[in-house]
Amino acid sequence: MTQTYSTTIELRFSDLDGYGHVNSAVYFTYLETARVKLFREPFEELTRQGVFLLVARAECDFKLPILFTDSVSVSVRMSRVGGASFDLEYRLHDGKGKTFANARTTMVCFDNNAKATVPVPGSIRALASAETPAFKQGDNGHAR
Amino acid sequence: MTQTYSTTIELRFSDLDGYGHVNSAVYFTYLETARVKLFREPFEELTRQGVFLLVARAECDFKLPILFTDSVSVSVRMSRVGGASFDLEYRLHDGKGKTFANARTTMVCFDNNAKATVPVPGSIRALASAETPAFKQGDNGHAR
Amino acid sequence: MTQTYSTTIELRFSDLDGYGHVNSAVYFTYLETARVKLFREPFEELTRQGVFLLVARAECDFKLPILFTDSVSVSVRMSRVGGASFDLEYRLHDGKGKTFANARTTMVCFDNNAKATVPVPGSIRALASAETPAFKQGDNGHAR
Amino acid sequence: MTQTYSTTIELRFSDLDGYGHVNSAVYFTYLETARVKLFREPFEELTRQGVFLLVARAECDFKLPILFTDSVSVSVRMSRVGGASFDLEYRLHDGKGKTFANARTTMVCFDNNAKATVPVPGSIRALASAETPAFKQGDNGHAR
Repeated sequence: MTQTYSTTIELRFSDLDGYGHVNSAVYFTYLETARVKLFREPFEELTRQGVFLLVARAECDFKLPILFTDSVSVSVRMSRVGGASFDLEYRLHDGKGKTFANARTTMVCFDNNAKATVPVPGSIRALASAETPAFKQGDNGHAR
Repeated sequence: MTQTYSTTIELRFSDLDGYGHVNSAVYFTYLETARVKLFREPFEELTRQGVFLLVARAECDFKLPILFTDSVSVSVRMSRVGGASFDLEYRLHDGKGKTFANARTTMVCFDNNAKATVPVPGSIRALASAETPAFKQGDNGHAR
Repeated sequence: MTQTYSTTIELRFSDLDGYGHVNSAVYFTYLETARVKLFREPFEELTRQGVFLLVARAECDFKLPILFTDSVSVSVRMSRVGGASFDLEYRLHDGKGKTFANARTTMVCFDNNAKATVPVPGSIRALASAETPAFKQGDNGHAR
Repeated sequence: MTQTYSTTIELRFSDLDGYGHVNSAVYFTYLETARVKLFREPFEELTRQGVFLLVARAECDFKLPILFTDSVSVSVRMSRVGGASFDLEYRLHDGKGKTFANARTTMVCFDNNAKATVPVPGSIRALASAETPAFKQGDNGHAR
């Protein structure tokens, strides 16, 4: 059982499209932004080593359009850790009970030098544990 | 049984991210670009009427990274037409047998004036038929 | 003589391009993000009225590449207010003396219903005054 | 005196913003897309060598909003070649006399391994000559 990490997302006016809503592809950018914040320290260290965290699968159920005046938070938890991959579950919401979308990604760890998948590094695996500070303190200072 | 529509995508250098691959969220932009080309005529007419084609669900299985030197095509077919929604299936490929990703979206038709979903318009429904010219002639001139 | 408003920018991994730097076009997105934060209240009210703040001219001198590990702030000041247009000057920096870029935009006020430029609204004009709270308190709480 | 290279740009629905126009920052993405098409061969070779073509300065005069139904072409010419930098001039237009924007960029050649600017490579310099095929045959097959 893992903790959930929550962070706010800074909307950009250019995130909107011709419908006046945040474009549906940008929801996946919000997922990535939350994910990279969650993993910041291991992410930067792994990137330096040439180990990439690649998206193997992404899915999103869009519940409500996001308008520019909305506040957007992403809550994310690691729902599975396997040998060379792990799953993340996300909720995009307004912090006050309104859910914009639910989403899931499967991530694989890829050594860009060896051009091969590698086992999930310990620094990522550790984030699955409830005791990890990264899950306790998001940018906006609260785990849920 | 429906025809498949294929179109090439113009890559942009800014589609790449820090990994040197096309960013995973941009795959969904490619899906949208193909979809909007397929639906161009009804899309523009519906937009004028305030009827939006919204993504209710999107999923993508990423098979291979896309590099800037790759050629990218999207093949799309309408796999289901229901009352107020329809499904599209996509394959992102290089036109020569290499598959970058497989994807699916569920689209809903939303009347932005009435703020309510509406039945799938006939102009969209017609595209599900094999005889539709839009499916026979993509930007790159071939259906598969 | 006007106050300067400063705000931090949330970088996204997808802002990087194939060079591993923030893409040059994204600098202009950062300018817009800062500008829209500065103008948030009048911006939302004007948008509801159909009055758009359009960019008539933009220029940017790029001094240093922005890496994903960099912190980015934008400081912006209104350097000119004319009849139907005004100028903004920006500095993109790390908050510690490193300047990434200097930029300027000329903005025009456009009534999208009348399809004509309109005089700079009082709510925008007021921001040029040193006493305006918006200039005293950015998202990160300090004017410089 | 140099030739002008022209190419069409594939618009994306997500290029629009909340105003229903192509976002102003995206104009710079269009410039880059045209530039990279013009330079494709030397660009790919230089990138492999770790030589980056960086934007040192960009400026754009926005004349008309671009709507999703517009056709957009970029015409670009090399207006100056110096020791370690060169200038490009651009016109964004509809191919039928309507100008959306005029723009200029100053490019510098940067050796990412040596972390130093380098002289403009001969492969780029050659493009300034009127005899260069790349200037004679754009993607849409005509120089102007």
